[in-house]
Amino acid sequence: MTTTTSSPTHLNPAVLQASYAVRGPLATKAEHYRAHIKAKGDNHDLPFKSIVTANIGNPQQAGLDQPPLTFFRQVAALTEYTPLLDDPRAQDLFPADVRARARELLAEVGSTGAYSHSQGVPAIRQHVAEFITARDHLPAELAADPSNIFLTAGASQGVSLILQVLSTKTSGILIPIPQYPLYTATLAALDTNALPYHLNEADDWSMDPQSVEDAIAEAHARDIAPRALVVINPGNPTGSVMQKETMQAVLDICAKYHLVLLADEVYQVNIHDPAKEWVSFASLARKNPTEPKVAIVSFHSISKGVTGECGRRGGYFELLNFPAEVTAQIYKMASVGLCPPVQGQIAVDCLVRPPKPGDESYPLYEKESTTIARALKERTETMVSKLNALPGISCQPSTGALYVYPRLYLPQRAKEEAKKRGQEPDEYYAECLLDETGICVTPGSGFGQREGESHIRLTVLCPGVDEYVGRIEKFHNAFMKKWE
Amino acid sequence: MTTTTSSPTHLNPAVLQASYAVRGPLATKAEHYRAHIKAKGDNHDLPFKSIVTANIGNPQQAGLDQPPLTFFRQVAALTEYTPLLDDPRAQDLFPADVRARARELLAEVGSTGAYSHSQGVPAIRQHVAEFITARDHLPAELAADPSNIFLTAGASQGVSLILQVLSTKTSGILIPIPQYPLYTATLAALDTNALPYHLNEADDWSMDPQSVEDAIAEAHARDIAPRALVVINPGNPTGSVMQKETMQAVLDICAKYHLVLLADEVYQVNIHDPAKEWVSFASLARKNPTEPKVAIVSFHSISKGVTGECGRRGGYFELLNFPAEVTAQIYKMASVGLCPPVQGQIAVDCLVRPPKPGDESYPLYEKESTTIARALKERTETMVSKLNALPGISCQPSTGALYVYPRLYLPQRAKEEAKKRGQEPDEYYAECLLDETGICVTPGSGFGQREGESHIRLTVLCPGVDEYVGRIEKFHNAFMKKWE
Ligand SMILES: Cc1ncc(COP(=O)(O)O)c(C=O)c1O
Ligand SMILES: Cc1ncc(COP(=O)(O)O)c(C=O)c1O
Repeated sequence: MTTTTSSPTHLNPAVLQASYAVRGPLATKAEHYRAHIKAKGDNHDLPFKSIVTANIGNPQQAGLDQPPLTFFRQVAALTEYTPLLDDPRAQDLFPADVRARARELLAEVGSTGAYSHSQGVPAIRQHVAEFITARDHLPAELAADPSNIFLTAGASQGVSLILQVLSTKTSGILIPIPQYPLYTATLAALDTNALPYHLNEADDWSMDPQSVEDAIAEAHARDIAPRALVVINPGNPTGSVMQKETMQAVLDICAKYHLVLLADEVYQVNIHDPAKEWVSFASLARKNPTEPKVAIVSFHSISKGVTGECGRRGGYFELLNFPAEVTAQIYKMASVGLCPPVQGQIAVDCLVRPPKPGDESYPLYEKESTTIARALKERTETMVSKLNALPGISCQPSTGALYVYPRLYLPQRAKEEAKKRGQEPDEYYAECLLDETGICVTPGSGFGQREGESHIRLTVLCPGVDEYVGRIEKFHNAFMKKWE
Repeated sequence: MTTTTSSPTHLNPAVLQASYAVRGPLATKAEHYRAHIKAKGDNHDLPFKSIVTANIGNPQQAGLDQPPLTFFRQVAALTEYTPLLDDPRAQDLFPADVRARARELLAEVGSTGAYSHSQGVPAIRQHVAEFITARDHLPAELAADPSNIFLTAGASQGVSLILQVLSTKTSGILIPIPQYPLYTATLAALDTNALPYHLNEADDWSMDPQSVEDAIAEAHARDIAPRALVVINPGNPTGSVMQKETMQAVLDICAKYHLVLLADEVYQVNIHDPAKEWVSFASLARKNPTEPKVAIVSFHSISKGVTGECGRRGGYFELLNFPAEVTAQIYKMASVGLCPPVQGQIAVDCLVRPPKPGDESYPLYEKESTTIARALKERTETMVSKLNALPGISCQPSTGALYVYPRLYLPQRAKEEAKKRGQEPDEYYAECLLDETGICVTPGSGFGQREGESHIRLTVLCPGVDEYVGRIEKFHNAFMKKWE
């Protein structure tokens, strides 16, 4: 087709560089299979009966069907269609605390159809600040400040906004390997430098502060000034929960090298091991300040935890120890997009102010959230132990987040076959897995790994773990045999 | 405060360059006044009793209170809290067509809490394509294709996505002056070149194709390759609706110089003059193809028209005549943000499939939308004629969009006073207007204008036009007198 379109060679070269694996070619192929099954019904000719979507952390998607928390949806419905609040026929349909919350939010938001303040509705930011203060047991003089809270369209938007503001051509951002590919994709599109440091798989994917020091030294040798450090805790894809001592060491490194700490804490509620306690970076930094103080951006989201409200696009970040001039630049760029989705903001309010004991909604809320948390924990444990029982697979425990991330020791001949096809070995493995079992996972190459390593990431969101891990077992054994 | 934060000099220099006037210092000052009045009640010491927010096109915001269309909100509530669909107590609360629509959407969307396809829910994109085909009276062989539709978080997100993909350091994007500052802010942050062409105020802000040719010649002289042309039709801030002949000339220029046409058509429904017919660029390009065909991106939004659902963040763009490799790059960048807000997508569905005659919701929908359209038209006409009656003000008719954009002929001494304060004359005028009357407008300098010119933009969304334009008249006369 001859048109006036820029051919790809005319496009932004940084955009061409970016890659994003989570929604890459495998996900597209899985969609095609799903459409094929839907179109053909029982007459389809695929060797499996359904697609299992284990590639993205999307709890409420069709087939996973994690139910939304009722409280969130009731508040959403009442704030959307406000005549329900006063209609006598609707009086029994909503608990008293839901009605009160909806009225309170409407008084602050006005209409859900109005652009809000670009930083988010002030009252909701106030509630976020109170949530942080309570969660981190902060004394009054260290309390979080609503003027440092920015509501966002999911954590994704917050992360890209902050990376945009911090990126320059000659500086770089330290990122963990493996990492959630939002980081590499965004940094590539910004034409700045991603400075990888490696997590320690053998030790439950822990972070070795020395690996960060090494990455900093390497950057300096290349004349790149490290400007910020990304930490994902609990980890995606690793499922690792950081220890307090390591976190303190990270803060010390940030102080020593003048790094902004980007703390991606979207999985803070997903902790499967009661022995592990999650603490926020901001709380440590507030209570044990370094010299200089570390500037921190902490990201949170309504998409994960037991909420799983991904489609609503809600989240926030808090700025700690940021000078006003930098905050002003962040505000300016936020305002170009006008405002985050108001229903997403309302869901953030529900996240930070869930029903309390004594509220009419509390018993149901409590039941729904513990049921979800229990299922996530049980599935994680089942998957880790079943995967570890397979030859050529070793899987760290995954005490947090929504994923298991086994390492694959693939036969040499399978690696050669992958190479012939122009794929990474784990891409080839994942594609065969999809073709033969209908299970869609994300290959480790999308998250970054050491040369020669192979991993796959599976979410712990699919019900029927026994059945579908059974499919993986069968496939895996046959694959290993075929290429041995 | 000494912290590890990058001082502003360490930030992305392109971000520091960007400016965004619509939510600039005046808007912030107006917020402070509003908070002051709220805190002090009747005891405040400001010389006005309320803030009139005439600076942004935000119809449902507090004080403007344009009601949402009931159909949209009923569908939203039922898709958020799905038990209402089956609860016998809720049967009378929603019309049959609303219930049917909600069920139909839920069958496609699954949960509103799930990430959708990154390009938007396929069925909703199908409905958008059908809407375009019907709106533009396209024969079957020219029908719009859902695979070229991208749903977005408001048109803003679509515009910045496309600009990001098209921008390079050595090329540029032609933009109208005056323009909606999303364009200049985004291009500045992308460190690419905005290539201004001037609209012709004297002729109802029409677009003179020669001015585009001139801007192209100037770019070539500076060794910058123009890559795309932005047209806003109906215009913001101008209120101008383009003539078909001019549009054809624009398409010819795009073909001649290999430009991608970015058609910002978010105000397509806001036409106040029955003699003016709005047509889409895509329909002209489809029906009278140039050689080569012009690649077009057309943007639409749920924020404007009579819908006014700004806070929901919904919109779409259609790609026409784009090669698959370029579309793939756009898709990749869209997928990094995961997906547009699902309730925004649902509102797009309502926008492109409103109730039809015969549907239970139709009479109310029809009444609500004509009431809003009539109010917008009447206010526009009143404001234009009242402003034109003032000395030192001339205002073009504004036959479309949601704004009037009068030119101010300010006294020399007022200009000197502005200069002393480091402000543009219209910034100074707008700040005095706010300080004395509580009316917040946007100075023309935020949209771009010729050296020495002054304008202000007022939205036509505020009820009580007679009263508040009366405040402007009084202020204006005193201002002119004071500085004459
Ligand atoms: C580590 C991490 N950060 C951020 C996000 C972004 O999520 P959202 O934009 O839905 O809040 C995700 C999503 O999977 C994630 O895994
Ligand atoms: C010309 C123009 N384009 C795009 C937008 C973006 O609107 P939204 O992102 O709410 O769709 C606006 C908003 O005022 C506008 O005036």
